[in-house]
Amino acid sequence: MDGYGRLDGISPPGRLAGPAEGITLEELALAARNHGLPLEALRYEVTPPGLHYVLVHYDIPAARAEDWRLTVDGRVRTPLALDLASLRSFPAVTHRVTMECAGNGRARLDPRPVSQPWLVEAVGTAEWTGVPLRLLLAEAGVGADAVEAVFGGADHGVERGVEQDYRRSLPLGVAAGRDPEVLVAYGMNGGPLPPQHGFPLRLVVPGWYGMASVKWLTGIRLTAAPFTGFQQAEGYRYRREADDPGEPVTRIAPRALMIPPGFPDFMSRTRVVRPGEVLLEGRAWSGHAPVTRVEVSTDGGGTWSEAVLTGPEGHGTPHPWAWRGWQARWTAAPGSHVLGVRATDATGAGQPVLQRWNRGGFGSNHVQRIAVLCTPESG
Amino acid sequence: MDGYGRLDGISPPGRLAGPAEGITLEELALAARNHGLPLEALRYEVTPPGLHYVLVHYDIPAARAEDWRLTVDGRVRTPLALDLASLRSFPAVTHRVTMECAGNGRARLDPRPVSQPWLVEAVGTAEWTGVPLRLLLAEAGVGADAVEAVFGGADHGVERGVEQDYRRSLPLGVAAGRDPEVLVAYGMNGGPLPPQHGFPLRLVVPGWYGMASVKWLTGIRLTAAPFTGFQQAEGYRYRREADDPGEPVTRIAPRALMIPPGFPDFMSRTRVVRPGEVLLEGRAWSGHAPVTRVEVSTDGGGTWSEAVLTGPEGHGTPHPWAWRGWQARWTAAPGSHVLGVRATDATGAGQPVLQRWNRGGFGSNHVQRIAVLCTPESG
Repeated sequence: MDGYGRLDGISPPGRLAGPAEGITLEELALAARNHGLPLEALRYEVTPPGLHYVLVHYDIPAARAEDWRLTVDGRVRTPLALDLASLRSFPAVTHRVTMECAGNGRARLDPRPVSQPWLVEAVGTAEWTGVPLRLLLAEAGVGADAVEAVFGGADHGVERGVEQDYRRSLPLGVAAGRDPEVLVAYGMNGGPLPPQHGFPLRLVVPGWYGMASVKWLTGIRLTAAPFTGFQQAEGYRYRREADDPGEPVTRIAPRALMIPPGFPDFMSRTRVVRPGEVLLEGRAWSGHAPVTRVEVSTDGGGTWSEAVLTGPEGHGTPHPWAWRGWQARWTAAPGSHVLGVRATDATGAGQPVLQRWNRGGFGSNHVQRIAVLCTPESG
Repeated sequence: MDGYGRLDGISPPGRLAGPAEGITLEELALAARNHGLPLEALRYEVTPPGLHYVLVHYDIPAARAEDWRLTVDGRVRTPLALDLASLRSFPAVTHRVTMECAGNGRARLDPRPVSQPWLVEAVGTAEWTGVPLRLLLAEAGVGADAVEAVFGGADHGVERGVEQDYRRSLPLGVAAGRDPEVLVAYGMNGGPLPPQHGFPLRLVVPGWYGMASVKWLTGIRLTAAPFTGFQQAEGYRYRREADDPGEPVTRIAPRALMIPPGFPDFMSRTRVVRPGEVLLEGRAWSGHAPVTRVEVSTDGGGTWSEAVLTGPEGHGTPHPWAWRGWQARWTAAPGSHVLGVRATDATGAGQPVLQRWNRGGFGSNHVQRIAVLCTPESG
């Protein structure tokens, strides 16, 4: 179904780290090439390029905009092959979208799934410009028996023994929907897509974890049966055991993050603040519904107090799929403190203090913990 | 000398990892916020933003260009306080510069110094635009007893117990020199500096490891004695033992890197190529002298053959401080291979196959190794 054969010798099966096993050099190689949002960059409502998280499964493809073609075929009335100029002739829209990697938080799980080792920083918000996917599907004419749209990217590699181009599908109702409105995007933050974000063309699925937003998009195929390729049927599933079929990873669970206050130690990243009033602030988001509440703890989760939500109110506003700001005030007293923050959305879903473990390390949204030392001026 | 006191409780002393100690969560936290150049991005002669390596010691400061001032003081005739408009009134130059982190390669050393765990990817090349530092020094008037220029950045934190603003110095002859010409830069690749690269102002010292190119530059002070602050006297020194005063880290040792050919396995990053002719290519640089020779091995370092150097010829050319391209052809036969590449510069300096160990993990330039499986089409 992925169109290539198996390559097992160089491609280890999925595994969990041993009880005392440190991060491996293979995990580090992924952490060194991909990157998260340095948490102080939560200060930017739209994340500048280079600070937005990036996860590339294989290599960033060498792409030439002049030669790029997007095909739309399968269960359609009129197959399309569109160059970038053709795509730009469709009405363009810009959506501000918060995107998060489904594996965010994985490296703090116990036992730790061995994969891209995110701690908490795999998130970012961008202004994506492109064509609503529903317009392209209408142009091609959706066949009566179509049930899914399968999206193919140019990123080519091997994963768990399976050689593949990166491919993911969406149910037709999501692909052709207006809430969220899925984009075929050629612009980011007012410029072309950077190479690592999918130049020249990518999918953007607001509210869903990043694996749905296929980069370096070359083809859209409507199918009469659900897609069973690797990234749909094997990867990106919530499962407890290796042989459990699991449930698909879809929308983003609620999460709030705090800009670590004060200043850090280089190596431990422990924060130092001065005694007195400290402004705590950050961002909160959910892919299910608007964030309705953010609470802050300054005693390691023992007690919680309400933060003030700032900025646009969420779904129904100009930026329905982007994070919201929040602020709280804290009077810091000398000593050691553990800060935390948690979000609740309009469905009532919140964030657990303890991890919800699954074998792939997906959808983890347990509460961020920030160690802070409050101490008078040392100089 | 760093102007603040000590904060030891949260700030561990330097240490070496134990014999079987995996990468720690603290090292991973640095790897997740900083990032290297994904090696396929060696294909770009000028590295796009977000792919150029980034190392931030503490936090990216919140900076407003409107309020920014650069002071030039100390042993000068006329102290200066320049806003960005004043800096732009000086003649602007643009230099293409390859920058590399002094700690590149650290995570493969044995024993491993515990710090930012770079494997091999902490490099990038940018077009930096700004004012030659020598013009600012001439404007201020260099005092007869000045011996060094000390550069202060707004990045504030703690390191090995020492609270500090990030500060580094250069000998006056280097600071005021023309070869390399040190820049006070406000532009990168034709735009303003991105936040993580020093917005709105930074130093760029061509040919030197990145620690010299102070970001978020706020002050330049000429001094009558050598600077003894943390980043000069404690950090960034070649030493074998913790109590050895060591030698300062300065210019970039020669290095060549190869774009990993074929396609990767997600987790192991092992490469797959098809049998037949494979184009091997990459970049090579040195901060001491032009690269004169690049050699490639396809048998794990047993034998070496000459690569062809491409692009500008190095010092004396339009881009004297930027990397050069290289290419070689390889006829791949089925089986497992280890590829390597090494550069030699005009001083005769090259790259060791085995590591040259030092306690900080600086200036490491042993040969890159790329594991490749050559196999016919599997599909």
